[in-house]
Amino acid sequence: MSLVIVGSVAFDTIETPFDRRERIVGGSGTYCSLAASFFTQPKLVAAVGEDFPEEMVEFFNQRRIDTRGVEIKQGKSFFWEARYGDDPNQRTTLKTEPNVFENFRPQLPSDYRQNGIVFLANIDPDLQDDILSQVTKPQLVAMDTINFWINRKPASLLRVLEKVDLYFANDEEIRLLTREKNLIKAGKKILEGGPSLVAIKKGEHGALVMGKDFVFGVLAHPCEEVVDPTGAGDSFAGGFLGYLDKAGNIRDENEFRKATVYGSVMASFVIEDFGINRLKSLSIKEIEERFSYFKKLVSF
Amino acid sequence: MSLVIVGSVAFDTIETPFDRRERIVGGSGTYCSLAASFFTQPKLVAAVGEDFPEEMVEFFNQRRIDTRGVEIKQGKSFFWEARYGDDPNQRTTLKTEPNVFENFRPQLPSDYRQNGIVFLANIDPDLQDDILSQVTKPQLVAMDTINFWINRKPASLLRVLEKVDLYFANDEEIRLLTREKNLIKAGKKILEGGPSLVAIKKGEHGALVMGKDFVFGVLAHPCEEVVDPTGAGDSFAGGFLGYLDKAGNIRDENEFRKATVYGSVMASFVIEDFGINRLKSLSIKEIEERFSYFKKLVSF
Repeated sequence: MSLVIVGSVAFDTIETPFDRRERIVGGSGTYCSLAASFFTQPKLVAAVGEDFPEEMVEFFNQRRIDTRGVEIKQGKSFFWEARYGDDPNQRTTLKTEPNVFENFRPQLPSDYRQNGIVFLANIDPDLQDDILSQVTKPQLVAMDTINFWINRKPASLLRVLEKVDLYFANDEEIRLLTREKNLIKAGKKILEGGPSLVAIKKGEHGALVMGKDFVFGVLAHPCEEVVDPTGAGDSFAGGFLGYLDKAGNIRDENEFRKATVYGSVMASFVIEDFGINRLKSLSIKEIEERFSYFKKLVSF
Repeated sequence: MSLVIVGSVAFDTIETPFDRRERIVGGSGTYCSLAASFFTQPKLVAAVGEDFPEEMVEFFNQRRIDTRGVEIKQGKSFFWEARYGDDPNQRTTLKTEPNVFENFRPQLPSDYRQNGIVFLANIDPDLQDDILSQVTKPQLVAMDTINFWINRKPASLLRVLEKVDLYFANDEEIRLLTREKNLIKAGKKILEGGPSLVAIKKGEHGALVMGKDFVFGVLAHPCEEVVDPTGAGDSFAGGFLGYLDKAGNIRDENEFRKATVYGSVMASFVIEDFGINRLKSLSIKEIEERFSYFKKLVSF
């Protein structure tokens, strides 16, 4: 199969209670494709400005990420600035400058358009819809979004949601979208509206994946220090979809279960350092060891 | 072995967003011993007033609970009134009337004092300490407490904590006691202070059990409706300790893991109806089926 990831490639300025990083490389497309690259060769679709470092594109290529879908446009790259509180789940967005993403209307290369897994990371739902209209016979379409779009463009968002197979959300987002406090009810509501799978990310409490006839849960890695939570959700999606693409079976409940664990493994690594740093030094061996650890954590 | 449970046997008035029950039987000792009675023959230590229904004591006996340690005192039984918000974790205590518990200084029957598991449910830490001084060579001592005592009698509480093997806490309590937001760090702090095991109950997010060299996590039963959360924590402790007493091995990590799951199973049943109602109709078969469900929920 193939895995096409549409998301942002950007600069982030991140402040935590302990430290600060200025204009480091981030973005949903970056985290997701890097996480997926440990399992498969993802095709990345994004726009960057002229300020985006060429070495970084080379690094993507070294990591077997196909960057033919990354458009270099006149202007500046997407920029986002945020501050985290003592509780890593408390995040305040200080600045969002879409820049080259403002008028980005990606045209997928022709070999991106068929028979693959398509992931629409957090971007304008109208843009997600436009991309969907370019693909034919996708094996699986997954999407993510954030509160900003749920509040700003609910109608567009619901229209896209009807067309996707898998919806990735965190607990706060799915509660906002479904107006249901109970996550199991919220998940069922999503399953009534189009998707056949929903993955609910719960930060330090792990993740739940629900299908029409199963529920699977995974605990978070019991870590003592979250250095930078940025990109955890996108890395979860990247690990999940990267594994599925490698497994080549998107109909098997057992593969969804494993995919969920690989997603959690990737998220657990990314938060150990700022930005994408931990993914730069990460090895397959470490991933497999942590996968085994996740098994031991819940076995009885 | 044997399992001695010291806790309250009381009347509760409970209000949820959907319904209300006046003066139904409750109390930490009640929930814990009923939950444990599905695994072993617990010995209950408590005080009740003359208003406590005799049929209820008979019901305890039918359920193989040894009530020789339940003292019937002049006056009224412990009374507690609480209201739950839309979020089952939001609880407001409206009234607490200790009544006969005010000056209760239990004397354990002589055959309660040796070689058993002792559980000190949520009561005044000075009383917990007094009870500990009556037992000799306990196999395992476990305790629970609430924010009220952490705030009111921190010195007494820490003195008891040093003497116990297993501390049951919910996430809010352990954060308050250790001043640590991160639950893994909070658990480690407890393990440095006396107990060799800590069980952290996280409501809808399940539970974590930590020992000196292992961490085990269990998810909550994915339920859509919590009718009445009262007694979930005490039923968790009852299932946990009841299973351990039955297993007869309090040194084996694998038994702790199973005990945690049985604790979660019992908690998941008790919240399905008001008060102890669900425990009245519950069967061993249902418990074993849910135990298997918990296994399936996390298997990959």
